[in-house]
Amino acid sequence: MDKYMLGDVGELHPGFSIDCVILCYYKKKIRVLLNKFDVSNYWQLPGGFMRKSESADEAAFRILQTRTGLTGIYLKQFHLFAEPSRTVMEQNLEYGNKMADGLQEAEWFMQRFISMGYYALVKYEDVQCIKKESEVMKWFDVNDLPPLYSDHNNIIKTALNTIRETLPIVPIGCELLPEKFKMSDLRRIYEIFLDKEIDRRNFQRKVLATGYIIQLEEIQSNSTYNPPILYSFDAEKTKEGVYFIV
Amino acid sequence: MDKYMLGDVGELHPGFSIDCVILCYYKKKIRVLLNKFDVSNYWQLPGGFMRKSESADEAAFRILQTRTGLTGIYLKQFHLFAEPSRTVMEQNLEYGNKMADGLQEAEWFMQRFISMGYYALVKYEDVQCIKKESEVMKWFDVNDLPPLYSDHNNIIKTALNTIRETLPIVPIGCELLPEKFKMSDLRRIYEIFLDKEIDRRNFQRKVLATGYIIQLEEIQSNSTYNPPILYSFDAEKTKEGVYFIV
Repeated sequence: MDKYMLGDVGELHPGFSIDCVILCYYKKKIRVLLNKFDVSNYWQLPGGFMRKSESADEAAFRILQTRTGLTGIYLKQFHLFAEPSRTVMEQNLEYGNKMADGLQEAEWFMQRFISMGYYALVKYEDVQCIKKESEVMKWFDVNDLPPLYSDHNNIIKTALNTIRETLPIVPIGCELLPEKFKMSDLRRIYEIFLDKEIDRRNFQRKVLATGYIIQLEEIQSNSTYNPPILYSFDAEKTKEGVYFIV
Repeated sequence: MDKYMLGDVGELHPGFSIDCVILCYYKKKIRVLLNKFDVSNYWQLPGGFMRKSESADEAAFRILQTRTGLTGIYLKQFHLFAEPSRTVMEQNLEYGNKMADGLQEAEWFMQRFISMGYYALVKYEDVQCIKKESEVMKWFDVNDLPPLYSDHNNIIKTALNTIRETLPIVPIGCELLPEKFKMSDLRRIYEIFLDKEIDRRNFQRKVLATGYIIQLEEIQSNSTYNPPILYSFDAEKTKEGVYFIV
């Protein structure tokens, strides 16, 4: 959660927060955007609270835009985190005291609050990390995470599991890859989410058989020796909504 | 929401409720379970509040068991309803005054509250409608609904849309049909969710080609003339999690 920019605590919906798992594909890894305030020992997901005047989706889009400059991106609710034990009171107190006037006086803030998990699929180069002076923002490999605040580790794990279970209906490749991409990068993305090696030839054959992907005439220009073939998603076909089953 | 059985309002998580879209397939229709209290003009989804000692999933399972006697069923979070305009204060006041002592005094109850939508897929014959003296419970065709409380119409519509969009990963047939079923009933379920007629032969061919369905030797015993062939889901295969794309 982001406890800056809270404004009047009385204007927030009680007992509820939003956490965003922002994922990109960069240098052969799936990465998640995390931030850490100077006063905290933990990294955390970009998040915040919902104002009484907002819907949850509006709040999530606002938080994302404020933190990454992104608008109109692929953003999905995936799970409501509501375990009674999820809010660690000591961590709340530390944050409440140090970070926002009035927050520690709001009764609900000192009790369990529930958090709607959203995941966003973005392109690495589109994201600006908009951070405050007293914080750091950084992309982390999802398979190599630092110590995280509260249940944020579980939130990230649940986001990855949700994507894995829904792979046939998530346009993961279109959202994470640039317009023109190499087949090896698309395969790598599936390998990370499925946590297994995928046979190169089988993958290529299956993926091309779906008709969702077009082989481009051009080749990657900066490669001179054995240049890789580039591919692109068929925009019309991908709208239909069922992707690959690999 | 079910405002009976609330117990101490102070023990409830503020600003949050749960609504369950319980779906079955009966006599060629997809049906949703609704209840209506004598004092109300509106039908509503079975629902309730989350106790401070519960997770959202625990609360949803408790509500379902209390209302239908069902345990261990297919129950999924599908959307958080959090539009600022969703709670109609007049309706809340009416309910609050008539139905639970102390509820109208809880500050959050008189403001917008957000609701986690769950959908459940059940078999018609497994459900007992457990109702109070002062209420009615009834199955309604999802395409022929009565006037509904608050945004419950939208909650049902969103549940159906969610299922339609995720059909390749929802075991809709296994959950809604009896162990042995006719191909025409499985097709009918897909026709209702997809809101279109499906060609009988193509459907049968595609469905059998997936290997998820076994044709049984036996035929329906009460039919003497041109008895229909019965089918069953392959329990092992359906665990793998990708169903039909029709």
